Amino acid sequence: MVTKDKRIVIAYIGGGSVNYGWKIFSELAAEEICAEVRLYDVDKQLALANETIGNKLREHPDCKSDIIYLASETPEDALANADIVIMSFTQGSIEEMVTEMHLPETYGIYQAVGEQTGPSGLIRALKTLPVYIKYTELIKKICPEAWVINMSNPMSACMLMMYEVFPEIKLFGSTNELFPALELLANICEKEFEIQPIRRRDIKYNLIGIGGFSWFNEVTYDGKNIMPLFREYAEKYYGSGYEIKPNEYKVNPFASANKIKFDLFLRYGCIPAVPDRLAADFCPAWYTSSPKTISSWKFSQTTVNYLKKLKLDKIGRVKNLMNGGELLRVGGSSTECAMQIRALIGQGNLITNVCMRNSGQVENLPIGSIVHTNALISRNSVRPVAAGRLTDELYGLTIRHVMNQKTIVRSVTEKDLDIAFNAFLNDPLMSVDLNDATELYKEMLSAVRAHLIYYC
Amino acid sequence: MVTKDKRIVIAYIGGGSVNYGWKIFSELAAEEICAEVRLYDVDKQLALANETIGNKLREHPDCKSDIIYLASETPEDALANADIVIMSFTQGSIEEMVTEMHLPETYGIYQAVGEQTGPSGLIRALKTLPVYIKYTELIKKICPEAWVINMSNPMSACMLMMYEVFPEIKLFGSTNELFPALELLANICEKEFEIQPIRRRDIKYNLIGIGGFSWFNEVTYDGKNIMPLFREYAEKYYGSGYEIKPNEYKVNPFASANKIKFDLFLRYGCIPAVPDRLAADFCPAWYTSSPKTISSWKFSQTTVNYLKKLKLDKIGRVKNLMNGGELLRVGGSSTECAMQIRALIGQGNLITNVCMRNSGQVENLPIGSIVHTNALISRNSVRPVAAGRLTDELYGLTIRHVMNQKTIVRSVTEKDLDIAFNAFLNDPLMSVDLNDATELYKEMLSAVRAHLIYYC
Amino acid sequence: MVTKDKRIVIAYIGGGSVNYGWKIFSELAAEEICAEVRLYDVDKQLALANETIGNKLREHPDCKSDIIYLASETPEDALANADIVIMSFTQGSIEEMVTEMHLPETYGIYQAVGEQTGPSGLIRALKTLPVYIKYTELIKKICPEAWVINMSNPMSACMLMMYEVFPEIKLFGSTNELFPALELLANICEKEFEIQPIRRRDIKYNLIGIGGFSWFNEVTYDGKNIMPLFREYAEKYYGSGYEIKPNEYKVNPFASANKIKFDLFLRYGCIPAVPDRLAADFCPAWYTSSPKTISSWKFSQTTVNYLKKLKLDKIGRVKNLMNGGELLRVGGSSTECAMQIRALIGQGNLITNVCMRNSGQVENLPIGSIVHTNALISRNSVRPVAAGRLTDELYGLTIRHVMNQKTIVRSVTEKDLDIAFNAFLNDPLMSVDLNDATELYKEMLSAVRAHLIYYC
Amino acid sequence: MVTKDKRIVIAYIGGGSVNYGWKIFSELAAEEICAEVRLYDVDKQLALANETIGNKLREHPDCKSDIIYLASETPEDALANADIVIMSFTQGSIEEMVTEMHLPETYGIYQAVGEQTGPSGLIRALKTLPVYIKYTELIKKICPEAWVINMSNPMSACMLMMYEVFPEIKLFGSTNELFPALELLANICEKEFEIQPIRRRDIKYNLIGIGGFSWFNEVTYDGKNIMPLFREYAEKYYGSGYEIKPNEYKVNPFASANKIKFDLFLRYGCIPAVPDRLAADFCPAWYTSSPKTISSWKFSQTTVNYLKKLKLDKIGRVKNLMNGGELLRVGGSSTECAMQIRALIGQGNLITNVCMRNSGQVENLPIGSIVHTNALISRNSVRPVAAGRLTDELYGLTIRHVMNQKTIVRSVTEKDLDIAFNAFLNDPLMSVDLNDATELYKEMLSAVRAHLIYYC
Repeated sequence: MVTKDKRIVIAYIGGGSVNYGWKIFSELAAEEICAEVRLYDVDKQLALANETIGNKLREHPDCKSDIIYLASETPEDALANADIVIMSFTQGSIEEMVTEMHLPETYGIYQAVGEQTGPSGLIRALKTLPVYIKYTELIKKICPEAWVINMSNPMSACMLMMYEVFPEIKLFGSTNELFPALELLANICEKEFEIQPIRRRDIKYNLIGIGGFSWFNEVTYDGKNIMPLFREYAEKYYGSGYEIKPNEYKVNPFASANKIKFDLFLRYGCIPAVPDRLAADFCPAWYTSSPKTISSWKFSQTTVNYLKKLKLDKIGRVKNLMNGGELLRVGGSSTECAMQIRALIGQGNLITNVCMRNSGQVENLPIGSIVHTNALISRNSVRPVAAGRLTDELYGLTIRHVMNQKTIVRSVTEKDLDIAFNAFLNDPLMSVDLNDATELYKEMLSAVRAHLIYYC
Repeated sequence: MVTKDKRIVIAYIGGGSVNYGWKIFSELAAEEICAEVRLYDVDKQLALANETIGNKLREHPDCKSDIIYLASETPEDALANADIVIMSFTQGSIEEMVTEMHLPETYGIYQAVGEQTGPSGLIRALKTLPVYIKYTELIKKICPEAWVINMSNPMSACMLMMYEVFPEIKLFGSTNELFPALELLANICEKEFEIQPIRRRDIKYNLIGIGGFSWFNEVTYDGKNIMPLFREYAEKYYGSGYEIKPNEYKVNPFASANKIKFDLFLRYGCIPAVPDRLAADFCPAWYTSSPKTISSWKFSQTTVNYLKKLKLDKIGRVKNLMNGGELLRVGGSSTECAMQIRALIGQGNLITNVCMRNSGQVENLPIGSIVHTNALISRNSVRPVAAGRLTDELYGLTIRHVMNQKTIVRSVTEKDLDIAFNAFLNDPLMSVDLNDATELYKEMLSAVRAHLIYYC
Repeated sequence: MVTKDKRIVIAYIGGGSVNYGWKIFSELAAEEICAEVRLYDVDKQLALANETIGNKLREHPDCKSDIIYLASETPEDALANADIVIMSFTQGSIEEMVTEMHLPETYGIYQAVGEQTGPSGLIRALKTLPVYIKYTELIKKICPEAWVINMSNPMSACMLMMYEVFPEIKLFGSTNELFPALELLANICEKEFEIQPIRRRDIKYNLIGIGGFSWFNEVTYDGKNIMPLFREYAEKYYGSGYEIKPNEYKVNPFASANKIKFDLFLRYGCIPAVPDRLAADFCPAWYTSSPKTISSWKFSQTTVNYLKKLKLDKIGRVKNLMNGGELLRVGGSSTECAMQIRALIGQGNLITNVCMRNSGQVENLPIGSIVHTNALISRNSVRPVAAGRLTDELYGLTIRHVMNQKTIVRSVTEKDLDIAFNAFLNDPLMSVDLNDATELYKEMLSAVRAHLIYYC
Repeated sequence: MVTKDKRIVIAYIGGGSVNYGWKIFSELAAEEICAEVRLYDVDKQLALANETIGNKLREHPDCKSDIIYLASETPEDALANADIVIMSFTQGSIEEMVTEMHLPETYGIYQAVGEQTGPSGLIRALKTLPVYIKYTELIKKICPEAWVINMSNPMSACMLMMYEVFPEIKLFGSTNELFPALELLANICEKEFEIQPIRRRDIKYNLIGIGGFSWFNEVTYDGKNIMPLFREYAEKYYGSGYEIKPNEYKVNPFASANKIKFDLFLRYGCIPAVPDRLAADFCPAWYTSSPKTISSWKFSQTTVNYLKKLKLDKIGRVKNLMNGGELLRVGGSSTECAMQIRALIGQGNLITNVCMRNSGQVENLPIGSIVHTNALISRNSVRPVAAGRLTDELYGLTIRHVMNQKTIVRSVTEKDLDIAFNAFLNDPLMSVDLNDATELYKEMLSAVRAHLIYYC
């Protein structure tokens, strides 16, 4: 059982990560947490590197935590006596993403990110979920009382799979996908109220939706209602877009001119809480029917080349971080994971946003589906805040993903790729006829067949 | 209150119909019903013609009923003291359908029927629902205890609108859209068991779904399970199709080679209870992405030209029917409406299929949505039979229509065509991007603007 | 799988019954059923006697069935290849009922029947459910596809237990507890319409509620609404009662003057579908607070002495029935079980009343609870008819029993008699304080401790 | 719309209160709130007195607020432009309570408090709800955007009535009934951890239930799980009770030895969050069957004499408070109402407990019933925290009250006291037979008939 009065054990599955991993290390260093963090990764070299890099952080003058990092040989080693388990890894290599993202384009299907939905999102789920089954069974056996924090995508399918394998699991999903929308709102408030700086956490909101496709229907800053202000901006910048750094979206796929946010807000009355590129992937081909359409909405596809470059940059820093030539920073607000852990072990209540099993917090999504709302985290307890009802139109857009996630999990449980084809067909980005869909599915499965042994 | 011991009053809104009208007259003549049928139609000439045609049926030697037909000047006249109200009419002229069916084709969107879904289905709803509001208000005021039998399309949206205006309305929807599937099943049984004839009513089934998109998940004939037999046929004829009259689908859009039925059955495990052309219109562009695709699935679009020809044929018979040169037939099994009326007035229980407000008969569709299942009709009582749950995949395909219907009704209630655009966008046949969708919607509204005064 | 084209196998657990058993044999003889009925009973002598008695029925000139009766040595023998399983037995001896019925009277708690509710009903559940677990596990293992028809009490707890052990079980409950109310209604119709005879099956109704406590909210005879007529009788006979045979209730505890029916109808607007004595046991001490109160409501307790006498009478006939000196009658309408079996094997659809898992047929009772409504039985299919919602007041009276049943089943599952005490305490007949309740519970458990080994 | 940047208007219906009124004034003085508080009371003298007393508080050196108190002639005056409405009054005189509390005793029915349940609770509802209808209609007309904070009893029935009259009302219920249980927990923690003082707000909890009958199922102090510690106390002090001040319950009916808390906890696994006397009134006669039983559970009835004395003491201080001889204190933590107002106007988020319409925060109570859980209050927003499910047993005890509340509200809506009799009959404290219940109801109605003109 988690508690603040002992050195807690955090198992980090995917602990060789040079991206999220380092972010988490930085955040943990900024909190008064006493822990042993066990890093397990299929890439053992990186886990060992991260052991060194993590421990070096103790030398940072701003470090507030008392944490020992330790690479684990096996997931069993990492999970032994764990109080907290972090799940954060990507299954498969970046090279494989080329097929997943770009093969559908030969059929006229363009995806913005391809991580959670679309043909690519489905294939990733089919690759990832069997691995999740394995880890969840280990958690059930080795540390059933541990809190599991999922950070991997496809978020909802991964979490649904874990509940399926271990219904009593203490689980929530943590994501930083709200950060850009909150920064946009903070920026608008700065302009409007002529105060600087306004930070993300100064923006209070009610959140409703699912991982990757969630909405703000109440936003306040300093006790003021920000919804009317956002409407002003949406109406004014609907055509041109609104950018904090002009034209950044052309070079950085994580940026956008927020045109999709404005369009969705004006039609549905709620502010998209996720980046434009994510929202686009959960809608029909409205914003992604062709490269020209994408460009007209002022955002970019997250291409595989971009991701490769990002990874190479990080890898290039490993040696320097290991020998102390560079230290990771302390803090930086790039994930809320550390603050969530702090609240879980009893150091004060925290209102934050999490993905969780729906027990009614979204009144009109099915009980048991994975939803994204605010929650109150306190000692050994994560309780959703009632988010209300999705409007009928947003429900209509959302529920098909919820059902597709169930279908995908069932296809994995039954080891039957024909079932998953039904989710493939029902994805909103699929605008082709049945014959083309059948062909595309075959080609994509064939391209990743090495990962599909599980289904044989 | 309906009862078998008096001459009941049936108000027929749309009573000038030469298509459904004559079918209903024929069926009523085949039952022991004592009634006055009041025919109201915006086309008063046809209502008067039908008064004569209906009354002539008394001369038919097989006529079992005692019915007086009477054309009404106003809907108020028709509804006064009504025990039963039949709603059966099409709003707008056949000419207008050209736009509704064929304008979307210029954007690459092909529709099979265009009556309930797709761009055409939406426009028809926008034209029809304001008229339904008017009639429902009259029913609420004049004959609130009457049973209302809806036979118009779009079935679900019309019924939802009526419940919205008058929540306590006694209402169900009656349709003959299951007949072709039942005839196919009867034909297969005839072959298999070498018995002839097997009639539609010999096939027993459990039905689940919504109007236009429903499914058999249990089928028996003479106490035998027919599902495995259907699977044999589906597997054998998946490629070639199976036709009672070969190649009929090429000349008759109401026919098909049942290929879509086989495809959907093999993927989803339930037998589509509706004609291929209807099922196609409720799915994404799987079967309708182009004329070539349509043709490869061995069915045809229900073109406006075809409908025009059909109507002309009927109109050509009016004079002869009025002067007794020809009599309508008695019976013919082209609608179950008369049998349903007979059960309602207390002449024996009837198990039949109806569209109704969901009170749980489809366990996983929203309470209050319009669903299609079996029901038990007895005196002054229509009670659905529990149909179970739609499978997750069929739920995923169905729920978007359910939500679109709610959105359409809301757009009518609020007189706001921007709301309806969200249903337009979320329709599965809409495979274009947001700009094209916006253009198409504007053009279609413009083409039927005469009908849209209500929204101004 | 059941089918009408072969000799089906019916396993009868409790097949040595001289009460229900003989009724079932009589009814089966009246239907065109070809079957082997395997009689299993802990009292093997009676099972063997019933084998002979059952087979003698073939000699009856009116016998329509082709049935072979066979006593089974073990339940496993009886269940092998069974298509249908009948569960119908009482756990424990009649002598034990003395404590169950009459010990609570020393604390001022009087029960009318004590079969399903009250202190006695609870103790019977605690004795019976462990045996049900054993049989259900056998059914799951030996004949999982069989339809199970439960006729034992406590009906709802027994059925809930079976679903708990084997969630996929094909199960319904069959009871004749509606017969007296239907006979009362038929009698009233005979008087009113001066027609004779009117039989039970001529009365059509909608049924809603739970086993032992159900209600008619629609009643018709020959297409006429009978509810207003019943109101006339209720108002007229509220004080005096209304009896088909005057004063019969004084000698026959199965009779009553229907005063409770009238009282409940006038307060709640629905007609109690069960005998007064059953209704009384599901209410607070309104009708049973003392022998004087019971007598003022013109019904009697079902005393153990009465039951003993009944059984002795039957036992006295066994020898004569075995040697053919007497034949059981054919038919007699004392249970609908045979007609239900006939419909299940595909010989025509049947609308009948059954207890079943709630899947929404009672809109406002919890999904998964056991409810009593009409159903449509067809080949291998039992589908509830939507019964609507219990009114708020009836819901309030009913839900506590539903929750108590869940609590009882949980106490059995967890083998924890402290849990069952909470159901004991929450029973509406329990009007004593906590200390007395604790004492009474201890004493009652002690009296039946021989049956409670399971919980140790 | 509430906001922190202006002087808000608080309408206080019942503002002549010398009990709750003074508590609220004290708390408001302790917060940085800028407001005009309009006091309306049927006793205009007391409203005027409280205007003076409230304004005198500005002279208190610790006063943090900027509040103007103003007695209003009419409720309309008080409600004009109100941002917040406080409802806090008792309908009828203390004298009338004698009948309500003590007449049932002549039938053997003893009540602990008689405010929300039992014969007395029902009569109070029948007196109070018509007045609530009147005020709610005014709120709907005059200040529909105001937040309404209900503090009157019967809490749930009052709130349900308001939602019935004005479904869109922004409403929550505020109560201090959790304070004694929290103080008990704080006291136990002080002993255990040898720290002093531990205050109520240091105890963190999850709350689930309904107003008057709610439960803690998670309790922590300083990040430590307190549930096991409470179990130790419950087991140790089950027999003797545990009192902070020994024997106080004998002179102060608000005190108790917590024996009921221990008993309920040991049987149901959750800690009662309400005082023993309240819990007793929501249970069957377990703890209240006679004065002897009450005394054996070490609590007292809240007699009318006691309440009279309390009121006289307060009235005796009025003059002194008006002329400044005494000042009300600032703060004192006797209600959370002021902190809730502060959060509502945007001065920081607050986790607190409130009664609200159930939208799923209690997963298994009906949507729309009034439940008691934690909530997150932020600017113009009150969002429940998901409390989970009541256990089956607690659900069984709770749901009958929920249904009775619905029945009571319906009897008021339909002005039909026969409907309310069904709630009367179904109350757990009613252990008499139907005839006695009928008599008692008549007598009680007769005693308060002056208040029942509304129903004529």
